[in-house]
Amino acid sequence: MTTPVTPVTPPLKDELDIVIPTIRNLDFLEMWRPFFQPYHLIIVQDGDPSKKINVPEGFDYELYNRNDINRILGPKASCISFKDSACRCFGFMVSKKKYIYTIDDDCFVAKDPTGKEINALQQHIHNLLAPSTPFFFNTLYDPYREGADFVRGYPFSMREGVPTAISHGLWLNIPDYDAPTQLVKPRERNTRYVDAVMTIPKGTLFPMCGMNLGFDRELIGPAMYFGLMGDGQPIGRYDDMWAGWCAKVICDHLSLGVKTGLPYIWHSKASNPFVNLKKEYKGIYWQEEIIPFFQKVAFSKESTTVQKCYIELSKMVKEKLSPVDPYFQKLADAMVTWIEAWEELNTPAKSAPVANSDPKKK
Amino acid sequence: MTTPVTPVTPPLKDELDIVIPTIRNLDFLEMWRPFFQPYHLIIVQDGDPSKKINVPEGFDYELYNRNDINRILGPKASCISFKDSACRCFGFMVSKKKYIYTIDDDCFVAKDPTGKEINALQQHIHNLLAPSTPFFFNTLYDPYREGADFVRGYPFSMREGVPTAISHGLWLNIPDYDAPTQLVKPRERNTRYVDAVMTIPKGTLFPMCGMNLGFDRELIGPAMYFGLMGDGQPIGRYDDMWAGWCAKVICDHLSLGVKTGLPYIWHSKASNPFVNLKKEYKGIYWQEEIIPFFQKVAFSKESTTVQKCYIELSKMVKEKLSPVDPYFQKLADAMVTWIEAWEELNTPAKSAPVANSDPKKK
Repeated sequence: MTTPVTPVTPPLKDELDIVIPTIRNLDFLEMWRPFFQPYHLIIVQDGDPSKKINVPEGFDYELYNRNDINRILGPKASCISFKDSACRCFGFMVSKKKYIYTIDDDCFVAKDPTGKEINALQQHIHNLLAPSTPFFFNTLYDPYREGADFVRGYPFSMREGVPTAISHGLWLNIPDYDAPTQLVKPRERNTRYVDAVMTIPKGTLFPMCGMNLGFDRELIGPAMYFGLMGDGQPIGRYDDMWAGWCAKVICDHLSLGVKTGLPYIWHSKASNPFVNLKKEYKGIYWQEEIIPFFQKVAFSKESTTVQKCYIELSKMVKEKLSPVDPYFQKLADAMVTWIEAWEELNTPAKSAPVANSDPKKK
Repeated sequence: MTTPVTPVTPPLKDELDIVIPTIRNLDFLEMWRPFFQPYHLIIVQDGDPSKKINVPEGFDYELYNRNDINRILGPKASCISFKDSACRCFGFMVSKKKYIYTIDDDCFVAKDPTGKEINALQQHIHNLLAPSTPFFFNTLYDPYREGADFVRGYPFSMREGVPTAISHGLWLNIPDYDAPTQLVKPRERNTRYVDAVMTIPKGTLFPMCGMNLGFDRELIGPAMYFGLMGDGQPIGRYDDMWAGWCAKVICDHLSLGVKTGLPYIWHSKASNPFVNLKKEYKGIYWQEEIIPFFQKVAFSKESTTVQKCYIELSKMVKEKLSPVDPYFQKLADAMVTWIEAWEELNTPAKSAPVANSDPKKK
């Protein structure tokens, strides 16, 4: 037997933050320890800031509660949702890393069909580091995967692909259903392991779930705003959807890739469908107008950065969706506030306030 | 033990033809006997018409060779390729059934990961009878499959889906690679069984392979023309690609669905990459202009049927692709001839000549 000459460094160890929104003790991290421990965590504590959140020993983390968010962002804190997992996007904003992985605290390590525990983070990193192919569909799925390639008839000029901005992972056990589907199919479980990763084609929208999600913060971070949800808002459970629709149209405009498929996590517990219905019901009919709106979004040539696209999008939201409900006026304003806050915290010269923000660092 | 009261009838037994282009004895049918025997076969014999093709005992079939094609179509036979599997589309034209399944004679029964033999035909029928969802991506793949559904955020107004026109199946063992990829990766085999069927979104083109393909002849038949390939033509191995690009833009215009994924067949033998390169090389650079052409295709409102779309498309091909090569002028004319022949053979009042065409019926 030989011993390795150099120790194995986990991929992107110093370039990736794990963002976790939570209201409870983070015991779920015990199961993720072999995979997450080398990485830095950003915990966004939702709800009562006086509550103490326990984090298992040995994890490197910073934790922000509502008081921290208010102190760091001042009046701009209004764009960060309260009592809704949408608050996670605050973690995206304060991160200084190139990559983000975000996961819900009711998600556990899943097993592949051979019984092996799935290192979800590693697969997301793999997805993010390999190119995407949004302009033409490859019938054998990810052409960059070992044992696969582009099939006959795939244009050669498109085989270089484009940078991948988003890696959307899936869920075994409890599927991510809306309240009506939960009510109709209370016992349905996702047991199908589909061994594929694919690029969502340009021009196609998808329902992005925030439960198990990786992205390249430098490429798409400013579009990953999870909107105004929860406390004081007429809607919940559309935070990740909103971010997904905004991010996808911007990725399409900027020729960036969005992947979905592997990795799976084990989603342990269905949320209450009655509570969900109350949060969702406005979204369920609003989205019938929101989707056609996003399907028609076309950015100007001047929108050459994510920030510029996002500001342009906020204007379109105000103009086209305010007639649906005054909420969208407020949301459009919050989108602008989000970008202002993002730029304040992410412009090198102005980044000092964050360093001094005194989050509860371990 | 109870005995069934009524015998089980294979699905769509009297509504589906299996079309097989071939130049050799059809011994491969032995392996498919349990699945294919109840169905009617249309065999299109390519190459030397004096050669006798043996079909295993017990199959119900009609066989057409080049002499039959010439006699049935007269001068319009010019649109049917010779010495190329593109000749299979003649079988689509003479069928009187609603559904077609077409398969190559080097394709065998594959096994799923549990070791069970896959009834590819049954899965295609399942794909064709369930709706498609081209307007929005469902991250859990086919929402109509047992154990799956539409995920949170999928607009409810789109959950009815649209009729499925095409079911594109895949291949284990020898992947459908172009000649350059075959040359570079001579030993690559597809061993990954991806347990999914999905709709190819509206606006997205894909490389349609004719090896293992089902479609609804009534919905999309006239667009399933496999072009001018092989003998006397400057190109080969783009027959199914051409049909796929034409059919996809027409499906998108007419709100019809195209699915890809399951079922797999076992593709036994790689074709000669040197021969393939000779057939493909013009296609490899032409497609760099063909794909942008198809990506920009927009039909007029008047094109309300597949035939009308196809005639309109032939005009666009003539105008936009003839500058690439005079071949496309010839192809555009052949597209019109194909539609004329299709209408001649498929208009009820005029269908007598086919009934009298005296194919070698068993």
